[in-house]
Amino acid sequence: MNGLDGALAWSEHGLELIDQTKLPHDVQILHIESMDQLRDAIDRLAVRGAPALGAVGALGVVVALDQAAREGWADDRLARELEALRTARPTAVNLAWGVDQVRPLVPQGRAAVLAAALVIVDADQRGNREMGRRGADFLEACLPAGPLRLLTHCNSGALATTGWGTGLGVIKELAVRGRIDHVLVDETRPLLQGSRLTAWELAGADIEHAVIPDSAAAGLILAGKVDAVVIGADRIAANGDTANKVGSVGLALAAADAGIPFVVAAPESTIDAATGDGLAIVVEARDEAEVLSFAGLRVAPAGSRAVNPAFDVTPARLVTVIVTDARTIHVARGERPVEPAEAAR
Amino acid sequence: MNGLDGALAWSEHGLELIDQTKLPHDVQILHIESMDQLRDAIDRLAVRGAPALGAVGALGVVVALDQAAREGWADDRLARELEALRTARPTAVNLAWGVDQVRPLVPQGRAAVLAAALVIVDADQRGNREMGRRGADFLEACLPAGPLRLLTHCNSGALATTGWGTGLGVIKELAVRGRIDHVLVDETRPLLQGSRLTAWELAGADIEHAVIPDSAAAGLILAGKVDAVVIGADRIAANGDTANKVGSVGLALAAADAGIPFVVAAPESTIDAATGDGLAIVVEARDEAEVLSFAGLRVAPAGSRAVNPAFDVTPARLVTVIVTDARTIHVARGERPVEPAEAAR
Repeated sequence: MNGLDGALAWSEHGLELIDQTKLPHDVQILHIESMDQLRDAIDRLAVRGAPALGAVGALGVVVALDQAAREGWADDRLARELEALRTARPTAVNLAWGVDQVRPLVPQGRAAVLAAALVIVDADQRGNREMGRRGADFLEACLPAGPLRLLTHCNSGALATTGWGTGLGVIKELAVRGRIDHVLVDETRPLLQGSRLTAWELAGADIEHAVIPDSAAAGLILAGKVDAVVIGADRIAANGDTANKVGSVGLALAAADAGIPFVVAAPESTIDAATGDGLAIVVEARDEAEVLSFAGLRVAPAGSRAVNPAFDVTPARLVTVIVTDARTIHVARGERPVEPAEAAR
Repeated sequence: MNGLDGALAWSEHGLELIDQTKLPHDVQILHIESMDQLRDAIDRLAVRGAPALGAVGALGVVVALDQAAREGWADDRLARELEALRTARPTAVNLAWGVDQVRPLVPQGRAAVLAAALVIVDADQRGNREMGRRGADFLEACLPAGPLRLLTHCNSGALATTGWGTGLGVIKELAVRGRIDHVLVDETRPLLQGSRLTAWELAGADIEHAVIPDSAAAGLILAGKVDAVVIGADRIAANGDTANKVGSVGLALAAADAGIPFVVAAPESTIDAATGDGLAIVVEARDEAEVLSFAGLRVAPAGSRAVNPAFDVTPARLVTVIVTDARTIHVARGERPVEPAEAAR
């Protein structure tokens, strides 16, 4: 649909990313040749989405090795650069996870690191399809027959992954099965990943959809106009508390009040066994200007400040199921991503 | 603060409105000389806010009489114009209420109509202050001592009224009493009445505030960062179900989950005894372009549609109190704006 299967690709030119800040109007490919370029792309959210960041973490180690060879870095420079990549965004656990998966192979050389990174990319693509099937199976089993009206937030599609998608992958799988009436897409302020990215993917896949202001979701859910909410995740704590794009917990509250399923789809790599619950998740605070201005135009008075948390945490008690590439975790029935005994090991 | 006390004034030039679409950057006064101009200002939300629309409804009858005299309208033209004004926006009951208050005086002539309309303006200003005191009294009585962190949505301040405000009037009264730590202001997509209008009023009143994306409110409330939510209303049904700017019910769900007060401040004229409950309230659907574009710039893909409800309905079960110019209705304790016996009379 866009020259790449998902947010990124590895070619003879090295790491390529779609510049998601330019969508839906322009499809521009960024050729990443340095760690500065890569961190800048991550900061600007030219690439975003937990699974895509996992792949970027792994492939970013290859970018670092290539730059190190070109510029003759000492080992401690390489170590510093990889650490800066690991922590470029504080909430998504996948970025650090991706780096950590391949960093131990650095002594074995570039080819070994690249091979391991490409295994991660391949596993993400296959895992996405598996997650889509599991999520679709769950919703087909628990909802009445007939076309479904689903609601999603932010972008958890191909652009958030190496292809297909997590939350949006579930929705696309249901579309393949002929089960979608339409999808309501939260525009997802401040950066409009819903109206810019998710609407673009749904239009490309010919899936009926309408963009809504984020604040309209709760009223539409309570008015009975939504059959289920399906989202992705940026970090899932051991107990099932789920960090995702700011606005997710509001959807979860509305879904719980209306008695409709709230489905989180995310790869196993999003589950952070080291984080016991949501209180331990650091929520990234982003630049105030993202809220106070729009397309470079100041909207708020000159003296006004903003608070701009990139994520919020949905308590496990509001999550119906978490579907991963490996399992369906019935959180509402008391299942946890990481059972206490397992966490203690 | 702006040349007018609130959204509007009556001067020797006739009806004057602040063009709220130009705020916060420009303070432009519209001189309304015809019903076409007035309906256009209402459609564009150059003037908005239920109590302001009540005053506009009443003063609009004078505008109509002046235009009728100037242009020699027949009586049926006048009747049609007043009916079009009554129904220019379907959800806010106050517009029709304002027209209905003074229309019976038309046979007595312009002076009688104008005098009655100015009584409405004056009563709104005094009622606002009373409402502010009641709301502040309620919050002071039920919250612990110390500076409060409040959250509000859209604009329910001077710009929504003839002066001072309803929901924001409560907050301003608490500021006068030295009880405000800071106010979180939902930006209020799609037209940003929060970041453009409420932030402007708070900056003008020197009240500490920060603008947030609408979708951040639920997470901040659940994280314990808000002591109470205070909003206005566009129509209140007999049972206490409350229509207000889209996004309000999401705040109510979060407030209920967190166990903090959800306070609605609105004049008695907002209570519609003829509407039994929220299901009977017609929610205005506004132009899709408000969601799909920003400042004339298309943000969503060309083919994507939008759903743009201007309001949502908060069920009475989620409302702690409704404060009006006349009373404090403890909805959470089972009190109703209109008791069933009263409604049946």
